[in-house]
Amino acid sequence: MRFVVGVMGPAKAKKKDLENARLLGEFIARRGWVVLTGGRDVGVMDAACEGAKRVGGSLTIGIMPTVKDKVSRHVDVPIITEMGSGRNNINVLTSHVVVACGLTGSGTVSEVALAVKAGKPVILVEASPADVAFFRRLGKRLVFTASSPEEAIDLIMKQMQVHHRRVRQAEDSRYQELSM
Amino acid sequence: MRFVVGVMGPAKAKKKDLENARLLGEFIARRGWVVLTGGRDVGVMDAACEGAKRVGGSLTIGIMPTVKDKVSRHVDVPIITEMGSGRNNINVLTSHVVVACGLTGSGTVSEVALAVKAGKPVILVEASPADVAFFRRLGKRLVFTASSPEEAIDLIMKQMQVHHRRVRQAEDSRYQELSM
Amino acid sequence: MRFVVGVMGPAKAKKKDLENARLLGEFIARRGWVVLTGGRDVGVMDAACEGAKRVGGSLTIGIMPTVKDKVSRHVDVPIITEMGSGRNNINVLTSHVVVACGLTGSGTVSEVALAVKAGKPVILVEASPADVAFFRRLGKRLVFTASSPEEAIDLIMKQMQVHHRRVRQAEDSRYQELSM
Amino acid sequence: MRFVVGVMGPAKAKKKDLENARLLGEFIARRGWVVLTGGRDVGVMDAACEGAKRVGGSLTIGIMPTVKDKVSRHVDVPIITEMGSGRNNINVLTSHVVVACGLTGSGTVSEVALAVKAGKPVILVEASPADVAFFRRLGKRLVFTASSPEEAIDLIMKQMQVHHRRVRQAEDSRYQELSM
Repeated sequence: MRFVVGVMGPAKAKKKDLENARLLGEFIARRGWVVLTGGRDVGVMDAACEGAKRVGGSLTIGIMPTVKDKVSRHVDVPIITEMGSGRNNINVLTSHVVVACGLTGSGTVSEVALAVKAGKPVILVEASPADVAFFRRLGKRLVFTASSPEEAIDLIMKQMQVHHRRVRQAEDSRYQELSM
Repeated sequence: MRFVVGVMGPAKAKKKDLENARLLGEFIARRGWVVLTGGRDVGVMDAACEGAKRVGGSLTIGIMPTVKDKVSRHVDVPIITEMGSGRNNINVLTSHVVVACGLTGSGTVSEVALAVKAGKPVILVEASPADVAFFRRLGKRLVFTASSPEEAIDLIMKQMQVHHRRVRQAEDSRYQELSM
Repeated sequence: MRFVVGVMGPAKAKKKDLENARLLGEFIARRGWVVLTGGRDVGVMDAACEGAKRVGGSLTIGIMPTVKDKVSRHVDVPIITEMGSGRNNINVLTSHVVVACGLTGSGTVSEVALAVKAGKPVILVEASPADVAFFRRLGKRLVFTASSPEEAIDLIMKQMQVHHRRVRQAEDSRYQELSM
Repeated sequence: MRFVVGVMGPAKAKKKDLENARLLGEFIARRGWVVLTGGRDVGVMDAACEGAKRVGGSLTIGIMPTVKDKVSRHVDVPIITEMGSGRNNINVLTSHVVVACGLTGSGTVSEVALAVKAGKPVILVEASPADVAFFRRLGKRLVFTASSPEEAIDLIMKQMQVHHRRVRQAEDSRYQELSM
């Protein structure tokens, strides 16, 4: 099973958030992880996939709201949910770690909230202190901050290790049950 | 078609939020409107339905996350989505107005964000200035504040009039098309 | 909690299926049960709600595919799922019993299959022997046939008794646990 | 964008259906197409992914019903929908072609019906004449039959050409609009 990083952010994004998303996509792909986004051909979704496809052999998955939305040309496999914003919950449940580049959109805010609800680690990249405080209040241990894509990658790496340790422990305990 | 008011709020709610939800449920039901909640037997969901069922002939609808969740005994019709938190989008799409009693839960925050995304008016009851500022930034014209259930009802009333005016205009323009 | 009967059938329905749906809607409403349909203003969905609204105090719920679909004017509460045909699973999970009037549409066929999958009793009204055989093979004990709306109502009545017996037993066993 | 073939079939499958699924998975992967299944570690879902992973560089996507279901160890990217059988609609919407190996399960029957509803080509492998007749009645032009995995692959190939021709035409007409 591949390790999946969800990159979330607004459709109408600031330049800085787009550049962060592009670099994040590239760095995630370089480590062999899958980039997951909301799949459309705009904003942070598009930029993260674009960055990932600079890397040979990368894999980008886009969880599409409807059949009619235009798929980013940097998405390898669009998953057609036909659920509108209901797909936001699938985005976060499928990601092992969620990274938010820009919190100016209500869709992204809903995704960060749903991620915390689902117990997923969330990394806020270059978020304002007010936004960080808002989400920290919802889920202290799950909400991390990064001041750059590089710092976000370090945090993802740590979360990946936590994830793999948990998977291993689950497998070990299953193995011990079987061998008893 | 009946007018539907969604009352959202945390499962683990403060006393004040529960009392507001109970009164809101009662006031909404008295006006003949439908009370819609997340349907479970806890917190604001349960309290709003309890309040509504104090009123004879009231109707409470609960949008349930899964088959296994316990339905509030004050819910008349549980809608079983089997979608977990994915049902939050259905909650807000089905409500003509969304009222939030307490923003301490990530589920409720996701619902307010999804409501703004869907263009639905949202009323925050006794919310902190920081929370109001956070959501106003996402959707200025859609986010209202109320310092009491009574004030919330006045705001819902105004939104209902806006809603009915729109429906009438849509019907008029359809009628004019037909008669031309 | 109210007892909910889902009436399913094609958008482009035969005259006979529409008349059956209308009578079923009326008979269901007369018994005080809720009529649930796919909510649109066409075919069996519309006819079942129309029949129900001939009865004073009846309640009709329509599980809508998208925001844009036109709601039947006989639906009291449209639930907006924004899920297209994905809403078919919600239709059957929410219904205590599913009745199919006409199996000429792929949507209805998917609903009968999903109902069997979810362990819900399904009543096929005036179905062909080939269709009955097809669905019996999937779920022998869950698939019933009726040659008229009246016969369907008798079968629903029996299923309602089974349902209430189960609810009572569940409550009794919970009570016994508590009192031990 | 990658070409996606959905392989559907029962969790409790016959030996023949499992062997067909395994070969289909392998043949699909050899052509560089993505194998999509319901993702669980049982039956046709598991077998199709197992076959695909015999091929180096293959990609298998599993659309999971819930967080708790065990993922097949042959799935590269599990998409967590938390929607139970509601995910069946996502399975067919995401697949460019749907192949059914065995129609003994109600889940698979719902998927074939939803595929026809969504206008997707469906290939029934070694299906009984009664089952073929049942589904042909729902969607004549969309339902194909194959007596072996090899024949199914030939049919998928033809559907892929139809698909790519349509995509090209859509792009051409967009290009002509832009250049006018």
